[in-house]
Amino acid sequence: MNMPTPNLKNEFRIIGKSVKREDVIEKVTGAGSYVSDLKPVGMLYGKIKRADVAHARIRRIDVSKALAYPGVKAVLTHEDVPRVLHYGSPHPRSASCTKDQFILDNKVRFIGEGVAAVAAISEEIADEALDLIEVDYEELPAVFTPEEAIRPGAPLIHDVGPGGNLVLEPVRVERGDVEKGFAEADFVLEGEFSGGRPVPAYMEPNVCLADWDGSNKLTFWTSTQTAFMVRGILAEVLGLPVNKVRVLVDHMGGGFGAKQDCFQHEFLCALLAKATRRPVRMEFTRRETFIAGRSRHPFKLWLKQGFRNDGTITARDMKIVYDSGAYGSHGPGVTIVGTNSATSLYRCENVRLDGRCVYTNTPIAGAFRGYGVVQTYYALDIQMDEAAERLGVDPADLKRKNAVGEGDIAPSGHPIVGRGLEACIEHGIAGFDWKARRSLDRRPDPSRPHIRKGWGVGCEMHGSSAYPGIKEQGNAVVKVNEDGSITLMTGAAGLGTGAHTALAQIVAEELGVLFESVSVVHGDTDAVPWDIGAFASHTTYLVGSAARIAAGKAHSGVLERASAKANVPVEELMLVDGVIHVTGQPGLTMTVAEAMGPSKGIPAANILGKGTYEPTKSYSFAAHFVEVTVDTGTGLVQVDRVMPVHDVGKVIHPIAAQGQIEGGIQQGIGHTLTEDYVIDTTNGRSLNAGLVDYKMPLSMDMPEIDTVILEAAPDPSGPWGAKGVGEDPIIAIGPAIANAIHDAIGVRFRHYPITPEDILNALKQREDQ
Amino acid sequence: MNMPTPNLKNEFRIIGKSVKREDVIEKVTGAGSYVSDLKPVGMLYGKIKRADVAHARIRRIDVSKALAYPGVKAVLTHEDVPRVLHYGSPHPRSASCTKDQFILDNKVRFIGEGVAAVAAISEEIADEALDLIEVDYEELPAVFTPEEAIRPGAPLIHDVGPGGNLVLEPVRVERGDVEKGFAEADFVLEGEFSGGRPVPAYMEPNVCLADWDGSNKLTFWTSTQTAFMVRGILAEVLGLPVNKVRVLVDHMGGGFGAKQDCFQHEFLCALLAKATRRPVRMEFTRRETFIAGRSRHPFKLWLKQGFRNDGTITARDMKIVYDSGAYGSHGPGVTIVGTNSATSLYRCENVRLDGRCVYTNTPIAGAFRGYGVVQTYYALDIQMDEAAERLGVDPADLKRKNAVGEGDIAPSGHPIVGRGLEACIEHGIAGFDWKARRSLDRRPDPSRPHIRKGWGVGCEMHGSSAYPGIKEQGNAVVKVNEDGSITLMTGAAGLGTGAHTALAQIVAEELGVLFESVSVVHGDTDAVPWDIGAFASHTTYLVGSAARIAAGKAHSGVLERASAKANVPVEELMLVDGVIHVTGQPGLTMTVAEAMGPSKGIPAANILGKGTYEPTKSYSFAAHFVEVTVDTGTGLVQVDRVMPVHDVGKVIHPIAAQGQIEGGIQQGIGHTLTEDYVIDTTNGRSLNAGLVDYKMPLSMDMPEIDTVILEAAPDPSGPWGAKGVGEDPIIAIGPAIANAIHDAIGVRFRHYPITPEDILNALKQREDQ
Repeated sequence: MNMPTPNLKNEFRIIGKSVKREDVIEKVTGAGSYVSDLKPVGMLYGKIKRADVAHARIRRIDVSKALAYPGVKAVLTHEDVPRVLHYGSPHPRSASCTKDQFILDNKVRFIGEGVAAVAAISEEIADEALDLIEVDYEELPAVFTPEEAIRPGAPLIHDVGPGGNLVLEPVRVERGDVEKGFAEADFVLEGEFSGGRPVPAYMEPNVCLADWDGSNKLTFWTSTQTAFMVRGILAEVLGLPVNKVRVLVDHMGGGFGAKQDCFQHEFLCALLAKATRRPVRMEFTRRETFIAGRSRHPFKLWLKQGFRNDGTITARDMKIVYDSGAYGSHGPGVTIVGTNSATSLYRCENVRLDGRCVYTNTPIAGAFRGYGVVQTYYALDIQMDEAAERLGVDPADLKRKNAVGEGDIAPSGHPIVGRGLEACIEHGIAGFDWKARRSLDRRPDPSRPHIRKGWGVGCEMHGSSAYPGIKEQGNAVVKVNEDGSITLMTGAAGLGTGAHTALAQIVAEELGVLFESVSVVHGDTDAVPWDIGAFASHTTYLVGSAARIAAGKAHSGVLERASAKANVPVEELMLVDGVIHVTGQPGLTMTVAEAMGPSKGIPAANILGKGTYEPTKSYSFAAHFVEVTVDTGTGLVQVDRVMPVHDVGKVIHPIAAQGQIEGGIQQGIGHTLTEDYVIDTTNGRSLNAGLVDYKMPLSMDMPEIDTVILEAAPDPSGPWGAKGVGEDPIIAIGPAIANAIHDAIGVRFRHYPITPEDILNALKQREDQ
Repeated sequence: MNMPTPNLKNEFRIIGKSVKREDVIEKVTGAGSYVSDLKPVGMLYGKIKRADVAHARIRRIDVSKALAYPGVKAVLTHEDVPRVLHYGSPHPRSASCTKDQFILDNKVRFIGEGVAAVAAISEEIADEALDLIEVDYEELPAVFTPEEAIRPGAPLIHDVGPGGNLVLEPVRVERGDVEKGFAEADFVLEGEFSGGRPVPAYMEPNVCLADWDGSNKLTFWTSTQTAFMVRGILAEVLGLPVNKVRVLVDHMGGGFGAKQDCFQHEFLCALLAKATRRPVRMEFTRRETFIAGRSRHPFKLWLKQGFRNDGTITARDMKIVYDSGAYGSHGPGVTIVGTNSATSLYRCENVRLDGRCVYTNTPIAGAFRGYGVVQTYYALDIQMDEAAERLGVDPADLKRKNAVGEGDIAPSGHPIVGRGLEACIEHGIAGFDWKARRSLDRRPDPSRPHIRKGWGVGCEMHGSSAYPGIKEQGNAVVKVNEDGSITLMTGAAGLGTGAHTALAQIVAEELGVLFESVSVVHGDTDAVPWDIGAFASHTTYLVGSAARIAAGKAHSGVLERASAKANVPVEELMLVDGVIHVTGQPGLTMTVAEAMGPSKGIPAANILGKGTYEPTKSYSFAAHFVEVTVDTGTGLVQVDRVMPVHDVGKVIHPIAAQGQIEGGIQQGIGHTLTEDYVIDTTNGRSLNAGLVDYKMPLSMDMPEIDTVILEAAPDPSGPWGAKGVGEDPIIAIGPAIANAIHDAIGVRFRHYPITPEDILNALKQREDQ
């Protein structure tokens, strides 16, 4: 890793250092507790009966044989559960949600949807009981693609919503005068783009465990990014006040956005536990993470842009259709965020965008790292590459020229701070030796004529919050204990990214104590302050800011106590590395432990500082430079080398940020080249729901990655200027690879994944011409 | 129950009502979870090898056979555990503790002391392994009574402390001029008093469960009254910061003060779990609750008082020796509190007190409801009865005349508020029909000449905090959730007294919401604000005050939010029963749920109010009026009827207060008549460590109780004037019974328990004279 640090101040003691992560020992030793490790006395196993038809009304459902099966303790169908129309993913601080889902309905909308649930004394018995449930379906006509779904007269999947199988009213964004812009253009580029259905494929399948106490309070362990949201929706749907629902999550094996929903199995697990008065655990098989999890939204996009010969963009006209699958989930948010994102990245004053989201009888798409933006920036960046080709200029230069920067309006409507994207491109041009590589002799090695090299660059920007869609609030409580140890209480989920470590660093830095003295309490909605959940790349930016405020208050509290104890004015005290110094008197010190502890007549103390932060938004930027090898004989693409250059403002934990970036690149390579959860568009059946047939890049497939983290454009709205990094790395890698493939073989692909078959077909087509 | 309520204000909506306790369903259905209900995956069972010698050095301890025994996972002796001298019961806000205990020592100080600990896969295997541990003792001379222990040349039990087997330096209190007082007396009474070793005999034996996570954080479930104290001492002794120890306690089956210590088995359980890296649960047998639990301090007391013929007390001279058993535990506190208590109750300006606490080679005495005061007021009240007899006046009248009241100095050094004791005596004289009963013809019924009736009155006072010995702090956090439900977070333990219900009532009253909308989060040191623990009758007084402050802040927060939402000045809003009203506009209302929820442009909110309270002290008072039947043939005493009259200031939950009073009377009857954990004073062996031979009163033994709760002297330092009630009822019942026995048969007993044997012996002795 390479980290030029123009804004790094020397006075940081912990921020910017890759301290040992607080979760690392538990994870590497296997001692960490995940929900599937829990097995309370008397626990039952829950399983879901899934539909094998894509669209149907349930005429009759007979559970009598399953109920009679020894070891089965409860069976639930749509007749047994509350009939409350709910949304999978509400945010109590937002208004835009689509209520389109029942816990169990008398209708089925995709193959794999749950129609009944069983609790039994073993997983095997529960599985066997599923086969004993008889369902009589009245099949209905189904649609499997957005094109079919929006065709006039198409079967309607939902009664709710704006109709015509739309999840929400079309999102229309217009700025400037698009027609005038096209009139001023020297040339116009137009293209159709599309993308498949990659899934997050987190290591830990969805799992939850429900237990009701004698006072009808529900305790609910679940692998979620949004514990308070799960609390809120469980409470609402089950008819409980939120103080009668406690949601717990300790370690998580990934989420990538998809674990923001409140899932069907979560309601059912809670209801099975209520019906049996026993704890019930429900865990997805890997297959279920595909069919009942959440994928990225497949999309179709039409993009037309006008360019002047100097490379400026005069007009942009875009239409995008996202495929939401059978339910809305994050469709509205993805459509709003994704559509608006196309106002930015490359500067253009005349913009007209139309974003739609459509129901189909396929598995549900949801939130996924890069939330709606992966799709639009794939198109925007590839078309910019085409423009460079048309203009005969270096695409990196053209992207830099058009990169949004200081004062330009971001998708959120706010002015952008700094010139982060420009800095990333500039740094990559130099660091990757871009110009020299692009100028290399492209003639194939005669001994291996099918091997072609190519170099590409892709760009992105992403907001470190969900504002303005959601008005976020970050909260933190910092306790200074009676022995001087520090406890940070946060509702922020630890998806595996090291978020709690970063928060502890922020607390230690602001409070003036050693990192090791800070312990983090998290993952219990009864214990920690309210939290919006871990998503939108906002944990460090949002909760980090709140933690800094809380730590600042604790800092003042410690100094006031030391001042009273030592009878020294508080202005003369300084707290560094857990030791309080008196200005100008080097010999006089007191540890935080001494300040907090008891002494003659003064009892020990505990200090509690609370921080709340309500941000707007900041943007992070990245340019990914890649080198690929294309084998024109097999169609295989090998990504050889990536230099991801990221502006993240102030970096808190370089190795954790690097880890996020490398992981995003791995996922992005998969999405661009190999990963696609394929639904048969003739019948709605899953063709590869499992990790044998769904191909993710493995460690051996990984390129050399030379990560560069810039602190080019710190945003004052984050702690010491820190911005998010979670989603960014998955966005730019896709167009960079597509552009590099074009550079290698001269074929322009406008979809993902770009499979070997696609490459061979394209080459054959070119030969045939 | 009878409850004249001179100070009850009509405007209370929840305070003073016996709402349904929040823990009641869990308790009556058996659904409530106690530590012994927990059984995490892989859990081991811990057991303790106990010494069978009273005083010895361990020459050698051989655990090889135990370690080799199949199923045994770890064995610990004094060679394997940290050698840290600790106190059983520190308070981080107090300084007076005696550090005299090791986790395991190479010395044994009483029969039953732990010398080794085993963890095994079953209780049976653990028990068998104990027998395989071979201990070679070098026996030492032992002392079993304070008289032996303080004799010059007695074997010393500890190296620490002031020496001479004293636990602490003698506590000496002197006010006025005692010699002058005696000189002014018309007559002097002098007597020796003593008491046995009653044990709390809580339903739930001591139990704990330890589990270490991969980051070496200890999670520790235990049945304790003082979770944060256990956290602090475990951390100190095990060498951890407190933020690496999490102590959890949900329901408790009683504590009565004795579960304030950090016990030997608790350290050992934690260490066994660390050694095995598996969860370990350790639970006392009933026998172990006797030998390794904590009893009240046995005592010897000498009391001499001078009286004038008008009944005033001119001088008081008292010496008391408490028997601490083998370790100090709460000996210092008990001695300080108990000795100082004799400055008060009955007014006397010339006082000289000497309190001592002595080590003996017997099981450990500790904190127990009525903390040192049961002993002194037993003597003070009985001697006042003697004075009345001598003066030929009604003892109730004499006690009323001498009762401390408004402006008199309490044992804490503070002026007493109100005339609570006087009010209690007055009310009892009338309510119990005292004068008429005492004037009844005492000649026995010729058909049953051995049956004698008697009536007695006993008085007491008790502080609602441990001040000035401990500078207490109460903390509470009140959350108003996004749906308007309320969460109270408190560290106060729920011993079974209904404390959490009372706290929830206080929150509901102050906040202006329904009681049912308040849920209480407690019992997790990681979650709740720091708490000193449940003892000293202070939970309602101390934590209740903090809860009221926190609720007041939450109340303001709700009104401010409603004001902003409805655009109505906050001064015009009123919150009653969860509904916000606008003054003068009866039609305009908004629920708390509506105020907190989202609406156009305003996201949902969560409000957090924090309350901290540092009190001095208030005193509660009681007079117990009893009727007894003494069978002079068998010596059996039957308590027929009790009218306990208590001044508790403002009563929060009348039925819960009544329950405390009735329970105290049951325990007090036991202590006075039947209960005594007997140690053979020739060898230190327990003679009745179990509920077969240790005789507690059962429900069939209970008298008719006609509880009277007065709100005679509300103390402004408690919430709405509320004071404590936890300890009071166990104190006055003892002397009341002794006085009634005297009234029945003319024999004055100055010790407890007063057994049938004692009565027969005394009657025989009188006949013999």
